[in-house]
Amino acid sequence: MTAEATLTRFREYMVGPSRFITLLSCFELGLVDALRDSGPQTAQQLADVAGVTPDAVQQLLHLMVKDDFVTYDEAAETYTLGGLADIAGADLNRVLSISTMIKVLMLRQGYYMTESVRAGKPVGLKEFYGFDGNVYDAATVHAELRESWGKAMDTYTAHIDPWFFENVEIPEGARVLDLAGNTGLGAILTHKLKGSPGLHVTTFDLPKKEQDALRNFREHGIEDRCGFIGGDVFQGVPSGFTVVMIKHFLDMFDKNEVFAILKGVNSAVEIGSLVHILVPVYPENVKDSYGVDFFPAFFLGCAMGKGGPQKLSTYRTWLADCGFEVTNAIAQNPADMPPDSWAAQAILSARKVR
Amino acid sequence: MTAEATLTRFREYMVGPSRFITLLSCFELGLVDALRDSGPQTAQQLADVAGVTPDAVQQLLHLMVKDDFVTYDEAAETYTLGGLADIAGADLNRVLSISTMIKVLMLRQGYYMTESVRAGKPVGLKEFYGFDGNVYDAATVHAELRESWGKAMDTYTAHIDPWFFENVEIPEGARVLDLAGNTGLGAILTHKLKGSPGLHVTTFDLPKKEQDALRNFREHGIEDRCGFIGGDVFQGVPSGFTVVMIKHFLDMFDKNEVFAILKGVNSAVEIGSLVHILVPVYPENVKDSYGVDFFPAFFLGCAMGKGGPQKLSTYRTWLADCGFEVTNAIAQNPADMPPDSWAAQAILSARKVR
Repeated sequence: MTAEATLTRFREYMVGPSRFITLLSCFELGLVDALRDSGPQTAQQLADVAGVTPDAVQQLLHLMVKDDFVTYDEAAETYTLGGLADIAGADLNRVLSISTMIKVLMLRQGYYMTESVRAGKPVGLKEFYGFDGNVYDAATVHAELRESWGKAMDTYTAHIDPWFFENVEIPEGARVLDLAGNTGLGAILTHKLKGSPGLHVTTFDLPKKEQDALRNFREHGIEDRCGFIGGDVFQGVPSGFTVVMIKHFLDMFDKNEVFAILKGVNSAVEIGSLVHILVPVYPENVKDSYGVDFFPAFFLGCAMGKGGPQKLSTYRTWLADCGFEVTNAIAQNPADMPPDSWAAQAILSARKVR
Repeated sequence: MTAEATLTRFREYMVGPSRFITLLSCFELGLVDALRDSGPQTAQQLADVAGVTPDAVQQLLHLMVKDDFVTYDEAAETYTLGGLADIAGADLNRVLSISTMIKVLMLRQGYYMTESVRAGKPVGLKEFYGFDGNVYDAATVHAELRESWGKAMDTYTAHIDPWFFENVEIPEGARVLDLAGNTGLGAILTHKLKGSPGLHVTTFDLPKKEQDALRNFREHGIEDRCGFIGGDVFQGVPSGFTVVMIKHFLDMFDKNEVFAILKGVNSAVEIGSLVHILVPVYPENVKDSYGVDFFPAFFLGCAMGKGGPQKLSTYRTWLADCGFEVTNAIAQNPADMPPDSWAAQAILSARKVR
């Protein structure tokens, strides 16, 4: 790459934060809604709706016009929706909820990225919320984090979890352990989507999740086919299960911790037992995806101070190193994902062989 | 634009903050320096230098590899500098100082962009520094702001101000007023670059700048050819000058304030007097530049809560509306600017005609 090309690329990086906050602010101020709800609008008309100056409206919409989100009629001095007019409501809700999550979880915390990597924990959570721990735990006590994170994740898990259950084998009457199963959603989905006579699913997570999980089981009428075991996966994995599910979890950790988890599972189950993993993955050729544009900053700078996805081939190798034979490994096809996606999720199924 | 193209573009916006903080963190952690100072390095070697985990090094460098800043040898599992190897030190210093300015002034404050636009002032300064006012005033009392802003601006003004003086007419023996001249740098440069017998330059700015300005004049041995007048441009412009310079100032304000400044200057000088303006401008076709990717967020969200550059043609019109005839209007040629630049500066020279 020539120096000129590198410096040009550097500029793209430097305008990244400003582009993001300008775009999101156009939505937050109601400029986009006003353009959708009315005909062509002048800067003054939009300013009246948003309660800001027409000068600010003009400044903000320059970028929208540049990138064809909005169009500007020079003669009439009016704005109308451009590319944004053709986006379906569900698509717009998705990108806006993710954008809000990025604003709330990442923008401010990004200031402390370097300190977070050094400390191995998200320093920004301490600075902005006085919280010592990871973002998932912080979200349980800080509504702003919970709402922005939850809303963004709901749009993903709504179609990712059904895809997971379509593609994994849960034998009839299996005894399933949902590792780091939170408050029982995975157990509920297992019964709903892979139910069979004798099937029993146990959620394993920190003891403080137990009451919520048991209530969820009762509300779904499956309390007799579900259980909860409180514990810490790094202290030991409970035994007596023929299938172990590890969903939305391995990407939070570094290699040595992923190995501790996989070896813990291996030592807790019998030869022939199954493990099903759901995790985002980087493509084999790192140049093929936007995942690396997002995840390192998210996990290292904002969520954990460590962790991040791996390639599918890396997880395969790690499973083999921990005594499992991989029986199925599939990643989402980017062609089937929304054009704004940066993450392909993968399913790895394996069987304990030693 | 198709919905697919719009959503794809949205993704570019969404990964903007994470890309930026990942890139900057690679520099802050010393990974780039370590690669420059040594041969090919493994993740573990780089981790030892940076005092972080090899897992974090791998995660951070994925993006550098993706964008060819750094190269990765799969077989040897080592990293070397890619595109970054060919960037001259001065170029790298420039983009890093600007990147640090973006981190310090914009990342966290970007969280309050919408509130800042509504309030007409940078809300983030209040939140993060307890400061009620604009970023230029905040920088006089907060070292972090001053250092990051000053360092970034020094790289610009070092070549912009000489270009300004090369292109403006300062008649022999003129009586020059440097409007919002801060602590006298413009006055000093005028004598240095446009000196003539009888030339006298007065710096006009807030009274609190007077002592620093007078000391600067003495240190440059030009105290007998310089003066300082304390005041507020919106309260009135002093009279008795034949040339008024307005550098690095008009872009801070909305239209009504720019008009107040230009009309104030007009009423303070005689017919035939000159005004020379230095200001960043947007290109006539907004799609031709990166300025709108940066400035609205900077001025509205972080620096002023208002303001922002205009097109050269807009400033021409405004000058005419305020009683001036434009005699020269030139903008920097993008071809002469570093590839990472997003802002073309312009010089507008005008003469009072009514």
